[in-house]
Amino acid sequence: MDARVDLITLRVEDLEAATRYFVDGLGWRLVLAVPDDVTFVQLGPGQVLALFIASGFDEQFGPTVHPQFNLARVVESEAMVHVEVERMVEAGGRLLREPERAPWGGYTGVVVDGAGCCWEVAHNPGWSVADDGTVSIGSVD
Amino acid sequence: MDARVDLITLRVEDLEAATRYFVDGLGWRLVLAVPDDVTFVQLGPGQVLALFIASGFDEQFGPTVHPQFNLARVVESEAMVHVEVERMVEAGGRLLREPERAPWGGYTGVVVDGAGCCWEVAHNPGWSVADDGTVSIGSVD
Repeated sequence: MDARVDLITLRVEDLEAATRYFVDGLGWRLVLAVPDDVTFVQLGPGQVLALFIASGFDEQFGPTVHPQFNLARVVESEAMVHVEVERMVEAGGRLLREPERAPWGGYTGVVVDGAGCCWEVAHNPGWSVADDGTVSIGSVD
Repeated sequence: MDARVDLITLRVEDLEAATRYFVDGLGWRLVLAVPDDVTFVQLGPGQVLALFIASGFDEQFGPTVHPQFNLARVVESEAMVHVEVERMVEAGGRLLREPERAPWGGYTGVVVDGAGCCWEVAHNPGWSVADDGTVSIGSVD
């Protein structure tokens, strides 16, 4: 399993304020904004910062763990979600959510590493990375 | 200020176990291990996962905030630490630590974004990134 983080997701109470800070304040590129839900901002090549509204974030990762953030990997197929989740569990991670269809149309599983950090493994047919590292996130509906 | 995260740092209670998980379990490349202190593991090009023992982590980011992780940027000079910290504060961030000499020999400041995430801006003379993205971290003593 290659060493890589594709998304860094921050739990935010005020999505509009967080979006303003990174996009208007720091001048970083908006990839996709879903009002009252989540904002994606381009980081380095192939990498995105996700600002996820607290209620949605807690629904995804609660109620047994209470993280402020999570790290995610995007893989090329649903089968690869299972492969990577199994690899993390074999390495000593704890399965938090079996891979399954996500409300947004993708397919994801979550493993908690030994330090308590949630690693999501996701297949997202709408995710693409250009040669220069620019990320696009399209609808998967 | 370019959009970029150079280090993702996780607060870990058991540094040896966390190191085993990522290096032995997942097979990711060890960049530098400082026993009983911190382990650095290569992520994507130019990016590192830092596993920082809880006591050291809390000393750096406590006592007013209690994060489980932080994000960091590595810049080319002490002057640039000041420039980026000021930019973050202008954008609406809250200064947590004025830029100053770090115990490990570098120079760092910390700003908390509106969502409560600590962003460290660091100059580290021992940090280098090869053309293929491989990170090296040498001693700065």
